[in-house]
Amino acid sequence: MKVVRWDHEGQRFSAEKMQKVGLFSSPLFFLDLYCLEPGQSQKPHAHEGSDKIYLVTQGQGRFQVGSEEQPLSAGEAVMASSGELHGILNDSNNRLVVLTLMVPPPS
Amino acid sequence: MKVVRWDHEGQRFSAEKMQKVGLFSSPLFFLDLYCLEPGQSQKPHAHEGSDKIYLVTQGQGRFQVGSEEQPLSAGEAVMASSGELHGILNDSNNRLVVLTLMVPPPS
Repeated sequence: MKVVRWDHEGQRFSAEKMQKVGLFSSPLFFLDLYCLEPGQSQKPHAHEGSDKIYLVTQGQGRFQVGSEEQPLSAGEAVMASSGELHGILNDSNNRLVVLTLMVPPPS
Repeated sequence: MKVVRWDHEGQRFSAEKMQKVGLFSSPLFFLDLYCLEPGQSQKPHAHEGSDKIYLVTQGQGRFQVGSEEQPLSAGEAVMASSGELHGILNDSNNRLVVLTLMVPPPS
């Protein structure tokens, strides 16, 4: 059995841009850790036919789903359904880590 | 935007059996919190055509995937691919919480 670390041991940051650490994937989905230094972002975008879930595991940031924006902290989660705009901005002074699920993965 | 708590605020336990707290679902997947008191379990079983991921968020327990069994703690995760046996036993003295993804959900 392959054991994967999804806590601090699995995190990877870069001063250049948000890092995506792949945890698990199959033809049906992917599950990543998104690691954002202060000021980094995932620009709002949408996927037709795919649902996406953001679960904040560490820190806090500003999340957009559809036309709404809201601050979220560790322990909170939101879903962007197929076709809905979604994005992240780490507007805090600390690292932000987001467990991110996409079903199905982009083709 | 609907914000869901997946930390201790989202947990629910019962002395009777393991509790499944639904966080998000669609026709494509479900994402639950499995909450196990000491001694509680999810008996080994398999789903043809669905992948399942267990991510331990709190405590520790004994996990089976295929013919292997292993102790896992908070911050660790495993995947059972389509058709593979999988199960959980909370053989510890503390509560065990597991973020559980199934893609696609059972039909």
